Amino acid sequence: MTTVVLKRTGQKMPLVGFGLWKVTKSTCADTVYNAIKAGYRLFDGAGDYGNEKEAGEGVRRAISDGLVRREDLFITSKLWNTFHAHDHVKTISKMQLGLWGIDYFDLFLVHFPIALQYVDPSHRYPPEWFGDDGKVHLQNIPMSETWGAMEELVDEGLATNIGLSNCQGSLIIDVLRYAKYEPQVLQVELHPYLTQEALVQLCKTLGIAVTAYSSFGPQSYLELGMGKDSASLLEHNAVGSIASAHSKTPAQVLLRWATQRGIAVIPKSNNHGRLVANLECDSFDLTDSEIARVSALNINYRLNDPVAIDPRMAIFA
Amino acid sequence: MTTVVLKRTGQKMPLVGFGLWKVTKSTCADTVYNAIKAGYRLFDGAGDYGNEKEAGEGVRRAISDGLVRREDLFITSKLWNTFHAHDHVKTISKMQLGLWGIDYFDLFLVHFPIALQYVDPSHRYPPEWFGDDGKVHLQNIPMSETWGAMEELVDEGLATNIGLSNCQGSLIIDVLRYAKYEPQVLQVELHPYLTQEALVQLCKTLGIAVTAYSSFGPQSYLELGMGKDSASLLEHNAVGSIASAHSKTPAQVLLRWATQRGIAVIPKSNNHGRLVANLECDSFDLTDSEIARVSALNINYRLNDPVAIDPRMAIFA
Repeated sequence: MTTVVLKRTGQKMPLVGFGLWKVTKSTCADTVYNAIKAGYRLFDGAGDYGNEKEAGEGVRRAISDGLVRREDLFITSKLWNTFHAHDHVKTISKMQLGLWGIDYFDLFLVHFPIALQYVDPSHRYPPEWFGDDGKVHLQNIPMSETWGAMEELVDEGLATNIGLSNCQGSLIIDVLRYAKYEPQVLQVELHPYLTQEALVQLCKTLGIAVTAYSSFGPQSYLELGMGKDSASLLEHNAVGSIASAHSKTPAQVLLRWATQRGIAVIPKSNNHGRLVANLECDSFDLTDSEIARVSALNINYRLNDPVAIDPRMAIFA
Repeated sequence: MTTVVLKRTGQKMPLVGFGLWKVTKSTCADTVYNAIKAGYRLFDGAGDYGNEKEAGEGVRRAISDGLVRREDLFITSKLWNTFHAHDHVKTISKMQLGLWGIDYFDLFLVHFPIALQYVDPSHRYPPEWFGDDGKVHLQNIPMSETWGAMEELVDEGLATNIGLSNCQGSLIIDVLRYAKYEPQVLQVELHPYLTQEALVQLCKTLGIAVTAYSSFGPQSYLELGMGKDSASLLEHNAVGSIASAHSKTPAQVLLRWATQRGIAVIPKSNNHGRLVANLECDSFDLTDSEIARVSALNINYRLNDPVAIDPRMAIFA
């Protein structure tokens, strides 16, 4: 299994993992169990995905059936926006570990550089974007407070690695100026329509591993009623012709386009055949010219942008 | 004179000012004096421009000749990267006021969200980007420390307004989370090749005034040996045809394209005719469709990016 070595801990992070976003609760435990059986070792979850308990059930079943040991797995989760205050980072991460039924996360990420008003998990969990009044309530918690609390998770053994998600260069650079433990991973939307070359280059320079989410571009957003106005990447001629040349699927080409450059991916599939195919995406190599042809599809098209919810959350402006 | 009202102080900032970047020392005092005579009231300087003493001479001469009073002028300067530490913000801003020969800045901006190692002004001033060894030396001073010191300049009456320059949305949002005094102005590169709609919209939402620099795009960079690989905006057909329709110059169209949307501009000219024409850029109105045609030239082409100096300074990634 191809991995990327995280700088601070030396821990190896698999380049291909399984993303838990939009994996339905009812099937999640089985999906995770079967993914482990198929060879997946990294699971990318988040408090916001609402399926941590079920994902944990799949993990525990796989461990008790002897498929893997905990230390063979790389489990990622994320801190939601309503828990950015120092004390909330602690309590919610412990609660999330409890839902998973594990003692530590291999990686815990700040999901968005957005701080929202606290919502008590006993009142509503996951809290999502809106208050009870249907409005967005920002809270003035600086990233430095949140990051300091994230570092304490490392000191307490609750997270082996910590990182950021959905951040721009200038904010990453600022976090590095006060970090006791530097972010080890940045997870961002990244696909041929949003290639983010400058951000990837910055992370490479700084020794921060990059995980791409939404590797298939608009495809992941169709079920949310988004991404319909752009051509599918999976059905794009440029991708399809490269796939044919290698006797691979377009999905495998889209994933390999990232992993071959050291960018981790976390595709999701409910289909066993595709799930296996995704994991095997590093069984072939693209030529430099093929990578360039896929990269040339870039149109800076971002699908996941909180500005669509509230103009004060223009974190990518 | 058209102005924009700054939120916190209620002070009016002229929408058209005179930019002091690349104004040579030897002519700077006369240029400023003549610009005041021509009607300019805002001067946009910076420690880094190396001409604060000379600009101040022009200002003082205009005041002593009775052309204007200090309170008629709006004088902007900027904090250089090597002075981001709390104590250095204080000492250098006082030194800069001393160079200008004034008691306060109407606006003081953090020039870049980049902290470099301190250089003693008695050793080298302006210090620019490199150390004595010709290398870039970053220093771990968080923006929060710098911003806190900027706020003290307000408390001490050394700056009436404070703001940011060359910042992205996520960092601006973070500053707002800990700011006692919110940034009143954001100054960024902005022209038809880099329209920055999302950033302008965020600032509008947050009540932060926007000043565009390099309004003529590549033109400002030709003397630095840059911008040669893109078509001139001043000679662009789309701009020229709009200028003809209004019997105005292309430069006036480029400036009006900004000011008509409430974005301040700070053109520079060494030519008296152009200097006057620039100031008169709000003597006409573009149609919505003309503004849209100019905006459609956007290619996200950024000329001033410190990543070109050092990959760790990818503040726009």
